[in-house]
Amino acid sequence: MERKELLYDGKEKQLYATDNPDQIIILYKDDASAYNGVKRTTIRNKGIINNRITELIYKELEKNGIHTHFIERLDQHNQLCRKTTIIPLEFIVRNVIAGSLTRRLDLDEGTVPENTIFEICLKNDTLRDPLINDHHAVAMKIVSYEELQELYSIVSHINRVLVTLFRQVNVIVVDFKIEFGRDANGKFLLADEISPDSARFWDSISKERLDKDRFRKDLGKLEESYTEIVNRLETLLSK
Amino acid sequence: MERKELLYDGKEKQLYATDNPDQIIILYKDDASAYNGVKRTTIRNKGIINNRITELIYKELEKNGIHTHFIERLDQHNQLCRKTTIIPLEFIVRNVIAGSLTRRLDLDEGTVPENTIFEICLKNDTLRDPLINDHHAVAMKIVSYEELQELYSIVSHINRVLVTLFRQVNVIVVDFKIEFGRDANGKFLLADEISPDSARFWDSISKERLDKDRFRKDLGKLEESYTEIVNRLETLLSK
Repeated sequence: MERKELLYDGKEKQLYATDNPDQIIILYKDDASAYNGVKRTTIRNKGIINNRITELIYKELEKNGIHTHFIERLDQHNQLCRKTTIIPLEFIVRNVIAGSLTRRLDLDEGTVPENTIFEICLKNDTLRDPLINDHHAVAMKIVSYEELQELYSIVSHINRVLVTLFRQVNVIVVDFKIEFGRDANGKFLLADEISPDSARFWDSISKERLDKDRFRKDLGKLEESYTEIVNRLETLLSK
Repeated sequence: MERKELLYDGKEKQLYATDNPDQIIILYKDDASAYNGVKRTTIRNKGIINNRITELIYKELEKNGIHTHFIERLDQHNQLCRKTTIIPLEFIVRNVIAGSLTRRLDLDEGTVPENTIFEICLKNDTLRDPLINDHHAVAMKIVSYEELQELYSIVSHINRVLVTLFRQVNVIVVDFKIEFGRDANGKFLLADEISPDSARFWDSISKERLDKDRFRKDLGKLEESYTEIVNRLETLLSK
């Protein structure tokens, strides 16, 4: 499968058309950005690692009955995916308090709430991806209340699969952000990626950060941490 | 009933203890503040007007089966209320897009969404009353999911009563903010006030603003607009 026209050039990924109108190629860049693009760098091999991590995770999700856009990894930086119309919402799941929520609500990082926290944000760079609620999403005609219920149910299922998967490699899934698209038939597919760029992963013993917070907070050992995640998953899943 | 110890000195109201431990006196000040206290002024007779508007509205709500903290208006500036433990959430209802939501989501003021928009904000001056969702409120142990459902049901009922009431005096209830308290038995009571300070009221024909936006946006005729609301309600309700 060959890359054709560039459809989208994002901060960390590029999307290309293919010969098949229902399929796209996603190129994972080595570029890293944080705080809505304010902070930027390049992390050696990040594209290769995130491409591989997303492959491993999405295959595991598919095995568990979650429909995703992932078809196959083509090479180190590229993967073939089903084309979808992206729903302009970020779904965020928080099993442990961290990141922006600590500042927003003055909560301590590392607090484990009794309930799982689900959030939706409007995907809009200019507005800085603001937190919204179900009523806003419906008022803006992005989704219906019924579709939101279906999406939350998928999101919750994804969280259970991820928590179980990562527990086996001694990693806590602190939080993660996912996006959905609709395929040509209107079916929801998990799109985008799940990687240390879009999730917080903590070593369950040392609580060491194995994710993009190492870049946001200048903790160093970026490539090593991302590699640690891919290595642990590969060891588990190749058994 | 006599005012005893000052319990709380707010930007626009004071709360006093009474001889009865289950009752408080609320004094409505003439002070006005907006943008989290950044902008301040005094509006002649505002305390008198809001005390009276809240009396008229809360009596109407009680008639419609809504439990409120209101007992009786004592004089021009003071009303007697049931003492409650305030739930630190602001419930906001939006029938028409206006105010902060236009900036937050880049929507046009005056847009009427197909669904009613309900929001909750954390009552916290330091954090500037941030928008939250149900999961945050439960994680912070402010309320349970079941209590939230009960509260939203009351909020929705209040909205229906207000829209019907104000339609009869040619006023659109654009949006409003309310707060709840728990009485000694844990029962939810509508607390605080409903007035042109905490709601947006537009004349249904001219779309003239009859609320605090006149102060926020320096439109003038503040006392006249608040008086217009009280006059229309008095004319209707004295029939």
